[in-house]
Amino acid sequence: MTNVKAFAAREQREQLKAFSFDLEPPKAEEVEIEIMHCGICHTDLVFLDNEWGNIRFPLVPGHEIVGPVTKLGDVAKDRALQVGQIVGVGWMKESCLHCNPCFDGETHLCENGKATIMGNHGGFASHIKTHWHWTVPIPAGVSAADAGPLLCAGITVFAPMLHYGISPTSTVGVFGIGGLGHLALQFLKAWGARTVAFSSSAKKADEIRGFGADTILPSTDDTAWDAWKGKFDLILITSFNGLNWEKVTSLLAPNGRLHIVGLVGEPVSLGVASLIMGQKQVSGSPVGSRSALGKMLQFAERHKISPLTEHFPMSKVNEAIAHLRSGHAHYRLVLDADF
Amino acid sequence: MTNVKAFAAREQREQLKAFSFDLEPPKAEEVEIEIMHCGICHTDLVFLDNEWGNIRFPLVPGHEIVGPVTKLGDVAKDRALQVGQIVGVGWMKESCLHCNPCFDGETHLCENGKATIMGNHGGFASHIKTHWHWTVPIPAGVSAADAGPLLCAGITVFAPMLHYGISPTSTVGVFGIGGLGHLALQFLKAWGARTVAFSSSAKKADEIRGFGADTILPSTDDTAWDAWKGKFDLILITSFNGLNWEKVTSLLAPNGRLHIVGLVGEPVSLGVASLIMGQKQVSGSPVGSRSALGKMLQFAERHKISPLTEHFPMSKVNEAIAHLRSGHAHYRLVLDADF
Repeated sequence: MTNVKAFAAREQREQLKAFSFDLEPPKAEEVEIEIMHCGICHTDLVFLDNEWGNIRFPLVPGHEIVGPVTKLGDVAKDRALQVGQIVGVGWMKESCLHCNPCFDGETHLCENGKATIMGNHGGFASHIKTHWHWTVPIPAGVSAADAGPLLCAGITVFAPMLHYGISPTSTVGVFGIGGLGHLALQFLKAWGARTVAFSSSAKKADEIRGFGADTILPSTDDTAWDAWKGKFDLILITSFNGLNWEKVTSLLAPNGRLHIVGLVGEPVSLGVASLIMGQKQVSGSPVGSRSALGKMLQFAERHKISPLTEHFPMSKVNEAIAHLRSGHAHYRLVLDADF
Repeated sequence: MTNVKAFAAREQREQLKAFSFDLEPPKAEEVEIEIMHCGICHTDLVFLDNEWGNIRFPLVPGHEIVGPVTKLGDVAKDRALQVGQIVGVGWMKESCLHCNPCFDGETHLCENGKATIMGNHGGFASHIKTHWHWTVPIPAGVSAADAGPLLCAGITVFAPMLHYGISPTSTVGVFGIGGLGHLALQFLKAWGARTVAFSSSAKKADEIRGFGADTILPSTDDTAWDAWKGKFDLILITSFNGLNWEKVTSLLAPNGRLHIVGLVGEPVSLGVASLIMGQKQVSGSPVGSRSALGKMLQFAERHKISPLTEHFPMSKVNEAIAHLRSGHAHYRLVLDADF
């Protein structure tokens, strides 16, 4: 039995407070991890605010978890994991491994999957138990302190590049250069693609070029877009607010894809002619498969790709959350355990 | 010089009347065809009604053309075409062959492409000139009299099966069992896919099963859909009116595709969550490439796939159009030249 120290919200929209609970020893397929670092994702705020209306409290948020394995179940021992090894856990904590998407390797689309913070206590804590399948070794060349944001923000933008066959000859646009977008630009640069950042933050321009954008276009003033009509093989939407979908779709090349990874309330509304004429497509995806996660970490190691982070001790979690809510987070926040 | 006899509308929404004009001998890449049969497509009505507002009159409609080659330009002679050979021409009449989509073989997405009835006189006529690229030989085992509708309606539903990798293990739904849908069901049956027709026409049920539908579900009453949630790899929308897009999308399996080939005014409006959660996609396409057209005709010959047609002599074109507008056309209408 492990006594877990954690920070939990007792009710929606409340400050997090110290919270502790006991963790049973891992079952056969489970892994116990001691948490060293945990990123804060926008979805943690969505959960704290109970925006979806179905969140159980007390809630321990956190699903960008990094730390050493402390205990292994009997089956997990045979899955190339060792006590002491630095591993990570992202949005997904368990997949059934026997539904059709799982058999296809698309374990993030598991029909019976469990998310790390849905009905379970997450990573703003000293320990967590996860399933071996979603316990991913962090390569030696990837900083453990900064790996957390790769496991949710990173895979969310990396998986579409892999899944939809983006090539070094592709032209890719990224809307929203924040936590997800700044990683998308780095991945795309290393991938060799021609990359255009859509951002209206003039003061971020140098940073955005540093992440790898070949070109920056304004995201709000679409009068500057005309020269780019029909040019994009992929446009990745990491966040948006009042986008003119017809205008965005007009930027796509034949067979081009408008791909949305930012979960917001505003529906996408599109004239059918825009899709038919250029044989275009609109799609979305959540995180990525276990296979994509492993490939992303190797790619990040090889190309020295890392999120830009600000660190807070976990005991200052409420300050960190307030900083994230202020909109001034410098790309991605990570909590360092100090129990 | 060939004197062409034709039927043209002098103004929008007017009856067609006899019309004649002279056709210059074919240029190097052109082919002259004597028209024996020409299908009537819904898009011909859209043009006659000038729904897009940019149609030039007098207009000779018709883009499901079949007949023998009468003359060949010097380059066209070297393209495996012969005088007397039975050929067909569909929606596309010319592609530039040197833009990127053309170089990719996606000549139906040509940046400089010309449609058969856009700015040109179409197939309700005795002769037409086309580019060799879009002059497709009709295989001996495909009825010349009924091949016309394959060249527009047929390719429009066949191309997505080919392009998006539909497999005999796929489950495919078809909304709207009319001119396009009844061909889609026949192709899907021969393809080996599990096929569900969405139709609310009870009196068509036996015919729909005959076309190859394994199951018929009501297209309007979505309460019967529950057992099919998450089952479809592809849902093909050939026509629609007031569909609940969220409900339709909920029928898609992970990675499933909602594909629209029916061009209507009503926009598609979708919550982002529906796309993200199951990694789903919405897309559209116009007709298909020259390669897809050839493959479709060979597939139709091998599997004895043919549209169900009603024939009218071309001199009764106005009666045929009135019949199509009445909504009682028995799947697809074909005009037989009787000049």
